[in-house]
Amino acid sequence: MKLILAVVQDKDSNRLTDALGEENFKTTKLSTTGGFLKEGNTTLMIGCEDKYVDEALEIIRDNCSQREQMVAPISPMGGNADSYIPRPINVEVGGATVFVVPVDSFFQF
Amino acid sequence: MKLILAVVQDKDSNRLTDALGEENFKTTKLSTTGGFLKEGNTTLMIGCEDKYVDEALEIIRDNCSQREQMVAPISPMGGNADSYIPRPINVEVGGATVFVVPVDSFFQF
Amino acid sequence: MKLILAVVQDKDSNRLTDALGEENFKTTKLSTTGGFLKEGNTTLMIGCEDKYVDEALEIIRDNCSQREQMVAPISPMGGNADSYIPRPINVEVGGATVFVVPVDSFFQF
Ligand code: NI
Ligand code: NI
Ligand code: NI
Repeated sequence: MKLILAVVQDKDSNRLTDALGEENFKTTKLSTTGGFLKEGNTTLMIGCEDKYVDEALEIIRDNCSQREQMVAPISPMGGNADSYIPRPINVEVGGATVFVVPVDSFFQF
Repeated sequence: MKLILAVVQDKDSNRLTDALGEENFKTTKLSTTGGFLKEGNTTLMIGCEDKYVDEALEIIRDNCSQREQMVAPISPMGGNADSYIPRPINVEVGGATVFVVPVDSFFQF
Repeated sequence: MKLILAVVQDKDSNRLTDALGEENFKTTKLSTTGGFLKEGNTTLMIGCEDKYVDEALEIIRDNCSQREQMVAPISPMGGNADSYIPRPINVEVGGATVFVVPVDSFFQF
């Protein structure tokens, strides 16, 4: 038995929880802020048998990897619309920091 | 030394914290949602010496076990009161998911 | 690799996070209440290599140790101002409860 603690971005956490749930992983969401990732992150606790750890990690990687995303920058306030053509820029989003912790014993009451 | 992580329903968490406190267990409450249990759960962190783990588990089981509870269903909106007699129904409440994690070292500053 | 779980007072948590960040420790903050310390505490998760655990603990001790602080008591409502001279009193603030937990494996995606 292992306890997987995954710190992910808020924007990825629902998709990740759904994807884990489809494979019958149970998750508990802890509200967290700052640090490992930029502001607005969530820590998921996932309890699973040793033999399923790799599958859980694969699901986390598939749903939360750091990646680039095109965003349209906000036009500068009061800028001259004729001379300013906003171009989408790449920003890095996502990312996951994952700790796999041993579990001595596990109970459900 | 062990760290016990117990995910319990919100409605059971105060009673559990009190019961643990009466036996001198110190708890820290983490706000959590979803997953292991239905919505509205709480994760308690309980640090304790190895020899007290069984007592802590017993207190968790006594205060949080899954159980049936009679609830009066809400009358349907706009229903015909004469033809509808609400009966109390059984719902399952409570339940605890508990991980006992080894602790390498413990400090109080 | 270790996961350090430090329960500290809210008032110390920003200073601690800054001090840890200056030494390149990454932290995630969990909102927590009650128990190990008086109301209003925060749990920090700090992942670090084994060889840096002592440095992290030293930073926690330096920034969160229990200590006395002089506070001016509030004058009693409706008290006779002439007969009541408030004196600063000592209260205990701070304190940290720290668990160092082994980590089987660690990933960043
Ligand atoms: Ni599968
Ligand atoms: Ni006892
Ligand atoms: Ni240093």
